[in-house]
Amino acid sequence: MTTFALPQSLADVRALLRSIPAADQAAMAQADDREGQLTKPAGSLGRLEDLARWLAGWQGRHPAVIDRTQVLIFAGNHGVAAQGVSAFPAEVTVQMVANFAAGGAAINQLSQAAGAELQVFDLDLDTPTADFTVEPAMSEADCVAALAKGMASVADDADLICVGEMGIANTTVAAALSRALLGGTAVDWVGPGTGVDHTGLLRKQSVVETAFHTHQDHLNDGLDALQRLGGRELAAMAGAVLAARLKRIPVLLDGYVSTAAAATLWACDKSALDHCQAAHRSAEPAHIKLLERLGLEPLLDLGMRLGEGSGAALAVSIVKAAATTHAGMATFAEAGVSNKDEN
Amino acid sequence: MTTFALPQSLADVRALLRSIPAADQAAMAQADDREGQLTKPAGSLGRLEDLARWLAGWQGRHPAVIDRTQVLIFAGNHGVAAQGVSAFPAEVTVQMVANFAAGGAAINQLSQAAGAELQVFDLDLDTPTADFTVEPAMSEADCVAALAKGMASVADDADLICVGEMGIANTTVAAALSRALLGGTAVDWVGPGTGVDHTGLLRKQSVVETAFHTHQDHLNDGLDALQRLGGRELAAMAGAVLAARLKRIPVLLDGYVSTAAAATLWACDKSALDHCQAAHRSAEPAHIKLLERLGLEPLLDLGMRLGEGSGAALAVSIVKAAATTHAGMATFAEAGVSNKDEN
Repeated sequence: MTTFALPQSLADVRALLRSIPAADQAAMAQADDREGQLTKPAGSLGRLEDLARWLAGWQGRHPAVIDRTQVLIFAGNHGVAAQGVSAFPAEVTVQMVANFAAGGAAINQLSQAAGAELQVFDLDLDTPTADFTVEPAMSEADCVAALAKGMASVADDADLICVGEMGIANTTVAAALSRALLGGTAVDWVGPGTGVDHTGLLRKQSVVETAFHTHQDHLNDGLDALQRLGGRELAAMAGAVLAARLKRIPVLLDGYVSTAAAATLWACDKSALDHCQAAHRSAEPAHIKLLERLGLEPLLDLGMRLGEGSGAALAVSIVKAAATTHAGMATFAEAGVSNKDEN
Repeated sequence: MTTFALPQSLADVRALLRSIPAADQAAMAQADDREGQLTKPAGSLGRLEDLARWLAGWQGRHPAVIDRTQVLIFAGNHGVAAQGVSAFPAEVTVQMVANFAAGGAAINQLSQAAGAELQVFDLDLDTPTADFTVEPAMSEADCVAALAKGMASVADDADLICVGEMGIANTTVAAALSRALLGGTAVDWVGPGTGVDHTGLLRKQSVVETAFHTHQDHLNDGLDALQRLGGRELAAMAGAVLAARLKRIPVLLDGYVSTAAAATLWACDKSALDHCQAAHRSAEPAHIKLLERLGLEPLLDLGMRLGEGSGAALAVSIVKAAATTHAGMATFAEAGVSNKDEN
C-alpha cells in the first residue's frame, strides 16, 4: 500500500495521480495459472474469470479475498438546482440522507443484501455549490476539501469499494463534466435524470452548454473541470477512487454521476481507472456513451437509474462470487476429472 | 398450492399441464401499489421492480419472501455422446457428479455464495439414453420416471428454484429439441458447447439434423420431443419446472440446456413458463435465439457457458435483492421525503 498525505491543493492531487501503482502482474499470472486448472471448460465462467484476475491484480494478492466491502455514499447540493433541472426539489437531498440514516432507502437494503458496510457522508448540504453557469461550482479549497473527505473515507483494510451519491440536480453536473472532458454537445450528455419532462430536458441542455462556454478557457485538466463544473459529492467520489487505487483496493463505479466523477481522474491519466469496474449500465442514456469512452464494460444491465450506489452494491455479489469460485473450486488433478486435453 | 400425484405416464403430465395455476393478480396489484410509494423515482430500480412484482405473482403472496432457495442439478448420460459431439469424454459426467459431492465444482461455490441449498441428482449414469439418431432417446416409462424424479425434488416450502444440469453431449440434445420445437435447421441451434472444434461442430449439426428426420413424424407435442430427443436430466428439469408451477414457486432457468428442457413445456402451453425467469444469457450462441422465441429476457449477460446451474445460482442474489428492497424500503410518507408530484 502506498502511504500518502491527504491533499491540501489540486497540485497535491495531481502529484498523487502521478504516483498511482500499476496492477500486480505476478498476482495476475497466478490467477491465470490457477484458472486453467479449475474443473470447468476453459473460459466457461466468462466475465467471472476476468473479475478474479482483475481482483488479484488490483488487490496485489492471489487469490483475492473480499472480506470487507465499503459502500461509500456522498451527498451534496448544487447551486444549479435553482434553475429547475430536476424533477425533485433540492430539499430531497437532505431528506434522503435522513432516509439513509434511518435505513429506509434502496441502498440500505442493497448494502445489507451484499454483506457490505454502508457509510454516508453529507458534504455541506446547507451550502450548495455556486451556480456553474455563472462562476466555478467550487473554490479550489472547497474542491480539495471534498476530495480529501472522499479519500479519508476509504478504510485501509477494505477489499472492495463501491462509490455512489445523492444530490438533486447532479445528473446535470455529470453532463457538464462529460461535455467538458469528452466533447460533443450538451445534447449528447443530457438525459431525463430522475424524470424531468421535455421542457426540463431542454433547460438541462441549455444549462450544460452555458456552463461549458462560461468555463471553457479554464479547463486545463480533469481536476479543473471537477472544481468548476463538478460538485462536492463528485469530488469526494473522485477522491475515494484515487485513495482506493493508492491503497490497492478495487472499485465498483455506480451510474452516470459516479462515472463522470471518476472520469475527471481518467482525463488526467488514462490508466487512472484501471482498478475500477463499471457495476452496471444505467438507464440514463449518456451513461453507456461515457462508459464506452472510458473503455469500461458494465457488469449488469437492469434498467436501473437510481444512483445512491445502488447498481454498485447490486454488483458486489457478482464480484464476490467470482472471487470465491476462483479460490474455492477444485482443480482437475484434485478432483480426478478428465480434462479436454486428455481426449 | 395445487396438490398433485406424481405422473405415471406422459398423459398424466399433459393433464398436470392443463391444471397449472395463473399468477396471483391480487398479490401483483399489492406489489404495484407499494412500489409506487417507495422512496425513489418511479421506475428507477428497473428490472428489480419487475422481479418484485413477478415474485409476488408467482409465490401468490405480498410481499414475496425468499428464505429457502433450492439449486437442483440433474445429471444424465447420452447415447449420442458416442458420436463424438463433445470436447470432453462421457465419463466426465460421473466425475463431475463426484466433484459436486466433494464440493469442488463452480456450482458448489456459487450456491454457497447465493445462500442456496445445492442438491444433485444423478439419473442412471451407467445407462446412457439411446442414440436418438436411430431410435427414441427414452421409452415413455423412462422419460416419465425422470420427469417424476425432477418433480419430487422440489420442496414444498422452497421460495425459489434454480434448475441446472450436467451431461456430456447435452448441448447437442438441447439443439435437437430446439430444432424440433421451433423449426429452422440444425445450423441455427448447434454451437460449440464446451468447446468442440470446427469438425466437431459440423458433426453436431449432422447429428441434430439426422435425429430430427428420424423422429419428425412422431413429434405431436413438446413431451413427445422430450421423450424422443431429450435426455433424463432434461426430463427431470422439465419436471422440476412443472412442479414448481404447481407449488407456486418461481424458477430461475440457467443456460441453453435447461431452457431447452423448459421449452418442451412451453410447446404444450405458451403460458407454462410464465413463472420462470431466464437467469442469464449463455455464450452458447443459440441460447439467446431460444430465449427470444420463448419471450424470456435474461437477467445477466456475463459470457458464461458452464451449465451446472451456474448462471441461475449467480442470479439468485439479484432476485433476493429485488425482494428485500421492495419489502424493506420506506415509503415517501414514512420517511418524510418529498415526492415528485409535490413539486
